[in-house]
Amino acid sequence: MRIVITGGAGFLGSRLTRALLALRGAEGGLPAFDGILSVDLAPSPVDDPRVASVVGDIADPAFAREVIGAETAGVYHLAAVLSGGSEEDFDLGMRVNLDGTRALLEAARATGRAPRFVFASSVAVFGGALPEVVPEATAVMPASSYGAQKAMGELLVNDYSRKGFVDGRACRLPTIVVRPGKPNSATSSFASGIIREPLAGQPSNLPVPMGTRLWLSSPDTVVANLVHAMALDGGRIGAWRVLNLPGICVTPAEMLASLERVGGPAARALVTERRDERIAGIVLSWPGDFEVDRLLGLGFRRDADFDGVVRQYRDEFVS
Amino acid sequence: MRIVITGGAGFLGSRLTRALLALRGAEGGLPAFDGILSVDLAPSPVDDPRVASVVGDIADPAFAREVIGAETAGVYHLAAVLSGGSEEDFDLGMRVNLDGTRALLEAARATGRAPRFVFASSVAVFGGALPEVVPEATAVMPASSYGAQKAMGELLVNDYSRKGFVDGRACRLPTIVVRPGKPNSATSSFASGIIREPLAGQPSNLPVPMGTRLWLSSPDTVVANLVHAMALDGGRIGAWRVLNLPGICVTPAEMLASLERVGGPAARALVTERRDERIAGIVLSWPGDFEVDRLLGLGFRRDADFDGVVRQYRDEFVS
Repeated sequence: MRIVITGGAGFLGSRLTRALLALRGAEGGLPAFDGILSVDLAPSPVDDPRVASVVGDIADPAFAREVIGAETAGVYHLAAVLSGGSEEDFDLGMRVNLDGTRALLEAARATGRAPRFVFASSVAVFGGALPEVVPEATAVMPASSYGAQKAMGELLVNDYSRKGFVDGRACRLPTIVVRPGKPNSATSSFASGIIREPLAGQPSNLPVPMGTRLWLSSPDTVVANLVHAMALDGGRIGAWRVLNLPGICVTPAEMLASLERVGGPAARALVTERRDERIAGIVLSWPGDFEVDRLLGLGFRRDADFDGVVRQYRDEFVS
Repeated sequence: MRIVITGGAGFLGSRLTRALLALRGAEGGLPAFDGILSVDLAPSPVDDPRVASVVGDIADPAFAREVIGAETAGVYHLAAVLSGGSEEDFDLGMRVNLDGTRALLEAARATGRAPRFVFASSVAVFGGALPEVVPEATAVMPASSYGAQKAMGELLVNDYSRKGFVDGRACRLPTIVVRPGKPNSATSSFASGIIREPLAGQPSNLPVPMGTRLWLSSPDTVVANLVHAMALDGGRIGAWRVLNLPGICVTPAEMLASLERVGGPAARALVTERRDERIAGIVLSWPGDFEVDRLLGLGFRRDADFDGVVRQYRDEFVS
């Protein structure tokens, strides 16, 4: 039996792959599996005999049925066209983020075994006027096509779960910081950039106000929470299968203070502050803080502070 | 230029057709039109030279593009597989309620003129624990596939509006009472039945507790609100295009008191009270009252009292 990870070749997908393999059944509650099937536009970078890769288009129902079948122990659906890309190419976002999710759910349903199905959603489902701290039952009013498509995916995961077609969990991921590599098409790309670039001696620009509240999680914490989301008994989650994964509420001002503490004043000095109205408009529509007590009670976790988030990146990626 | 009405042959669609024709431009703000195009599985019953009918499947994108085009002044999308049908045949509900809505929105987008698009949604998008009086910004947690599909339709209408593809308005309709004709399989069928049947000298049973709060609107009021939803300037609605159409909160006890006042004690005596757990369980989960001040301020209306709702039905349908 294998755990399927769409977006398995990506940053998060490949870390999740390594984490699942490292567990070797140590995390109670996970469905039994002996391998990972990475589904993405490129093969998994994880070099391990227990990892297989298939390359293809998840929005193609025939392909979805090829990758999810009798040997599927559970599904992580992480693949998506990100916020910037979905806003630029509406039809591509609809195809991958909505049709793709639906095709995978249909393939999981067709197995007849209601596999666990962890869907990576996003706080981008929120928009409009929001309370300072967002309660669990808060209306979604997405201000982006990415957010709208993720909100539709949540509704699908819920209804497929209610019908007993899958055992779904829609996890709204905080913004993941610090991502390694190059800036990507996500509107939140700057949140990694203002730490990553200065630590490499490169300049970076902050396009949103210093006081913007961001809801952040380190890669290690998100991966641990995704593992837990698959391991958790559905009965403990309740009928409504949407989970606001815990994060920490941090402003760029606090992030840059952490950068200075961990990376020094020279690194901090490399960050300029030039507002980009398009990016600021979207990011300021996102909620900055959430009620997470129930989630912490369910065993999900969050980072202790942002200094630790910077150190996690520095220790792994900065030589 | 024509106004397109999907579900145009139905009870609500045909009343809306007649109302729009009777207005002859009297309601300010409506897009200019000189005819109605009814789109349904049967032709419109409205015998008027200004009404044309096409029969076909709205989930077929080619058909959707046939019925919405350069001559489309605005769209009412009322056609749906209702709650019972969507729960029984999941795939049919997804096809008509989700794919159909998307195909119509795509056809409207393809006109390049962002036509006004009024989408009939439902209070069935709600579920779970709800406040006594439901505020406008309340999280949807549909407990039925119909509700999930309508909630996805709302997200589509919103995002297509935000992108400027249509000028959308998603109206959540209260339960419409009193519907003429025979009892149907709808869970709310009794709400019309306990008035309609006794007025025709027939017995009827109340399957829910006397104190159950129901959110009701007469057909005339819903039609007037649908006309207003098309006529209203989009700027007055705001960025989020979902409208909880006003209704009145009435209990069966109050409904039967109205029946006695309007139809006499003999009519009232024809209603039995035999609880049906399946129906009661569903109906008791529905929201019974909503905050509607903003909507009333925007010019939407509601029935003055339930006596008037009973008289509206009696005067039109009881000889």
